[in-house]
Amino acid sequence: MADFAKITGMDKEKLQNLRHSLAHLLAAAVLEIWPHAKRTIGPAVENGFYYDFDFSTEKHQSGPKNEDLHLIEEKMREMINGWDKFEKEDISVKDAKKMFSDNPYKLELIEEYGDQGLSIVKSGEFIDLCRGGHIESARDIKPNAFKLTHIAGAYWRGSEKNKMLTRIYGVAFETKKELDEYLWQQEEAKKRDHRKLGQELDLFFFSDLVGPGLPLWTVKGTVIRDELEKFAKETEAKWGYQRVATPHIAKSQLFETSGHLPYYKDDMYPGMELDDATYYLKAMNCPMTMALFSQKPHSYRELPLRLAEYGTVYRYERSGVLSGLLRVRGFTQNDAHIFCTEDQLENEFVQVMKLHEYYYRDVFGIKDYYVRLSLRDKSKKDKFGGNDEIWDKAESVIQSAIKKSGIPFQEAIGEASFYGPKADFQIKSVIDREETASTNQIDFIMPARFGLKYTGANGKEHPIVVIHRAPLGSHERFIGFLIEHYAGAFPLWLSPVQVAVANITDEQLGYAGEIVEKLRAEGIRVEWYNQNETIGKKIREAELQKVPYIAVIGEKETKAVSVAVRQRGEGDKGAMKLEKFIEKIKKEIKVKN
Amino acid sequence: MADFAKITGMDKEKLQNLRHSLAHLLAAAVLEIWPHAKRTIGPAVENGFYYDFDFSTEKHQSGPKNEDLHLIEEKMREMINGWDKFEKEDISVKDAKKMFSDNPYKLELIEEYGDQGLSIVKSGEFIDLCRGGHIESARDIKPNAFKLTHIAGAYWRGSEKNKMLTRIYGVAFETKKELDEYLWQQEEAKKRDHRKLGQELDLFFFSDLVGPGLPLWTVKGTVIRDELEKFAKETEAKWGYQRVATPHIAKSQLFETSGHLPYYKDDMYPGMELDDATYYLKAMNCPMTMALFSQKPHSYRELPLRLAEYGTVYRYERSGVLSGLLRVRGFTQNDAHIFCTEDQLENEFVQVMKLHEYYYRDVFGIKDYYVRLSLRDKSKKDKFGGNDEIWDKAESVIQSAIKKSGIPFQEAIGEASFYGPKADFQIKSVIDREETASTNQIDFIMPARFGLKYTGANGKEHPIVVIHRAPLGSHERFIGFLIEHYAGAFPLWLSPVQVAVANITDEQLGYAGEIVEKLRAEGIRVEWYNQNETIGKKIREAELQKVPYIAVIGEKETKAVSVAVRQRGEGDKGAMKLEKFIEKIKKEIKVKN
Repeated sequence: MADFAKITGMDKEKLQNLRHSLAHLLAAAVLEIWPHAKRTIGPAVENGFYYDFDFSTEKHQSGPKNEDLHLIEEKMREMINGWDKFEKEDISVKDAKKMFSDNPYKLELIEEYGDQGLSIVKSGEFIDLCRGGHIESARDIKPNAFKLTHIAGAYWRGSEKNKMLTRIYGVAFETKKELDEYLWQQEEAKKRDHRKLGQELDLFFFSDLVGPGLPLWTVKGTVIRDELEKFAKETEAKWGYQRVATPHIAKSQLFETSGHLPYYKDDMYPGMELDDATYYLKAMNCPMTMALFSQKPHSYRELPLRLAEYGTVYRYERSGVLSGLLRVRGFTQNDAHIFCTEDQLENEFVQVMKLHEYYYRDVFGIKDYYVRLSLRDKSKKDKFGGNDEIWDKAESVIQSAIKKSGIPFQEAIGEASFYGPKADFQIKSVIDREETASTNQIDFIMPARFGLKYTGANGKEHPIVVIHRAPLGSHERFIGFLIEHYAGAFPLWLSPVQVAVANITDEQLGYAGEIVEKLRAEGIRVEWYNQNETIGKKIREAELQKVPYIAVIGEKETKAVSVAVRQRGEGDKGAMKLEKFIEKIKKEIKVKN
Repeated sequence: MADFAKITGMDKEKLQNLRHSLAHLLAAAVLEIWPHAKRTIGPAVENGFYYDFDFSTEKHQSGPKNEDLHLIEEKMREMINGWDKFEKEDISVKDAKKMFSDNPYKLELIEEYGDQGLSIVKSGEFIDLCRGGHIESARDIKPNAFKLTHIAGAYWRGSEKNKMLTRIYGVAFETKKELDEYLWQQEEAKKRDHRKLGQELDLFFFSDLVGPGLPLWTVKGTVIRDELEKFAKETEAKWGYQRVATPHIAKSQLFETSGHLPYYKDDMYPGMELDDATYYLKAMNCPMTMALFSQKPHSYRELPLRLAEYGTVYRYERSGVLSGLLRVRGFTQNDAHIFCTEDQLENEFVQVMKLHEYYYRDVFGIKDYYVRLSLRDKSKKDKFGGNDEIWDKAESVIQSAIKKSGIPFQEAIGEASFYGPKADFQIKSVIDREETASTNQIDFIMPARFGLKYTGANGKEHPIVVIHRAPLGSHERFIGFLIEHYAGAFPLWLSPVQVAVANITDEQLGYAGEIVEKLRAEGIRVEWYNQNETIGKKIREAELQKVPYIAVIGEKETKAVSVAVRQRGEGDKGAMKLEKFIEKIKKEIKVKN
């Protein structure tokens, strides 16, 4: 695993120094091969480093191509043996200008930063103008733990007014194992890209007629949506939630009452003027649920009241930032709002955190998660509603609850929502993609704006506090994540098609048809591969579609009233009586594995 | 039952004549008691008749009050004995003016209609200016089959510039039985009004912050929505439907392609301008499903493809016509579109009709239904898209399919949708409220606009035909109907609360709590009446909430590990072991009774 999981290994600063040191080595190796090239700058970046060169001064004005990268790598490995330390020395502007007199890029930097003091770094025969940030010994560079990845064009100092340079990228880690894992993840990420798989597996698509960021879900994608919703509905019923349903539009008054309009208007679709009112598409469900709670008086006996809604909301995102299912304009949230007393708040929040663990760790098998706890920035009063007393209370409860939940967390100052602190549940898939799975908030402010109260055991009115939560986030983002996490090979309970029935020849059409009907009658999702193709082709097709089970029907199976079962990832499981096959499938669906 | 069911009894015209004759009798009786009153006009109306009088010429300018209606009724019954026939005679303008010289209202009518020819009708001593439309013999009026219902103000000739008159309303039927049934229905309709019950049973409400015609569904109302959707999903899966999910908004291009925008724009919410496009809230799901179908090529092997969506749509209705759940601006349809070949069309339509019968007759116990078959008006070419050949084909198929389904139907010329003929499924609740439960359409036109094709067995492309159908109509209208149909006493499977657990004293709190948990663990919806009230009050409260089962827990039940069961409509069923009670409930839920 890369950086995120490596907090316990080589520290982050040392790893960045290692990468920057490799940039020096890269420059040294390039200059060995292309001695007339002009080097410019070479920083460490996430997972690696790069160095920019001007090859126009070379013979034939020609620098390396992608296929030459392995030559440079070899040269780097060869040179590393002659390197020992990275020695840093101060240098005067005058000496520096002299040293780099044939390099206009370095001269430009010396001119610009000379008055701040300059330094050079020496290693082996190689000297570069550099502010430092290196490992102590070149021995820390493992020759098999770095790799040059690709070449790209880059303008000098990022401005298109300047000359186009050649950038060589590399990745580097402490160990070969980490490098291999990273490279595997990159390959996997390409293969698992949910946009690519979404099309191959026919799960969702975007339409020019409908608009950007507005996915349409096919039959197969809708199975996943429906299964997730059903599972969340059942789970949350057990955890004491009750469902409500509200419209997708409301008058501006609702969003003025909630306080969203002044803060959030640019992120909402524009208003619709009708009968002297302005209607907005809801960009969030909370104002609706608050209006619903406010409709009648409530007693302490009813609390906590956990009102859930699978609500579809619409938000304006610039078309440039839209990205498959991960950033969309319309999405359906696994939303709920918990209306409770101040005393119940902490325990309710702990339960919300535990529900997250149940979903992610226990059901979806995600081991890598933590909470990003967003608090207010006390110096920016205009950005955060309400008064200090309320904020202090909310922040203290959320901190305490997260500690009690035992889930690892990191604090992020200034990242709170305008109405309260929030706890983002961050998850990582097997390909190291970190996603905000859901956002949880404690809110004293919006309930007050809606005048939400309850009558206590003492007969007096008290203010209601609300927790906003949506463990499965949005269908869109979460299914996008799951496609990549499972590489499209969904567990049986989520698979759009659970069993592919494939007859070997047309002679088994009758018996295969019976099997299809029997499986369907048991509520199992079946696709019948009955086209006039070879059995090999049918099996390959079903495998490409990542169908968990293939039931092959030949003459033998027809006679024996059985099916020949192929299981995804395990291959041929041999013949099985239909009843046993059904039993096996139903059991596996039930345990969600 | 009233008119609708009475097609086989006294014919409609005769019934209207009977009612108009009663208006004469009413006028005669009123003039006996208030001889200085001026009578004006008295037509038959739906279910009865009225007569308008000017009582300002009476002593003290005072006419009858509602509490006097029974006196008038008695006078009518007394006079009827002296009546025999209704004799009509032509009369000259001159004679008419003389006869009604003291009645300015009649004089105005004589002035206006004199040149068309006038007539009078005599019965007993009573003569009225009248165009006719009476029963032959006054003996046909059954003295116990009519009733005066109420008095209201009405302007002369409907104009507020004229004098306010006094209108006396009556209802009349062929037999006392029909009258009683009608009066019972009227009483029931008041008690069953879904707006009243919706509030008493806490099912839904409207919010000024959200807007008119946009219901918010409470926890209890959402249970009914969810159960209906789950039931439809399971049922339609068995009938070969597959679900899809699409956004609530789309660019204008989608609705231009479908052809809705030019015809339907005034019924849609106004557009939202964004990034050089105009977005509209969808007012129907069909354009989305068509866009979805058009996304990839289709083979004849896939057809018929039945794509279902529980889609929420928004339509602009003038605020004046909004009425509870029966006429709203936002509603969720039990929608589906069947994509098929021309050859499959008729059979698919028959199946759609049979699915309706299954839902209404078999599940909801509605016996009174028929199909209103809306065809085009051939003389209005601009109102109906496409060419005659296509329309002829569509109308011929739909007529044939409805005949084959065996469901009674009536034709309505000119009522078709712009893209094809439609078959509305009309249902009647026990209180005689007729509703359009759903609309079904055959559509050759929209699929052509989207260029929908399939590849036939011959390898060539053929046009797709679509059936639009939504048997349960919209959640909103249908639940509104069901509330009135069941008077809020939903069958067990639809009941928001299935069992009320009521402990007699606080001493049984522990055992009652265990019962509540055990029932919940079985997936039964329970409400615990654990407040500090008498058992009598708790039972009354649960009965008012129409909870199907009340489990009473006293000392005896605690000792015997049982519950004392009260069943809605049947009263005390005695003590029952918990397991047996659970078994009984689960069985009843399963059979949907």
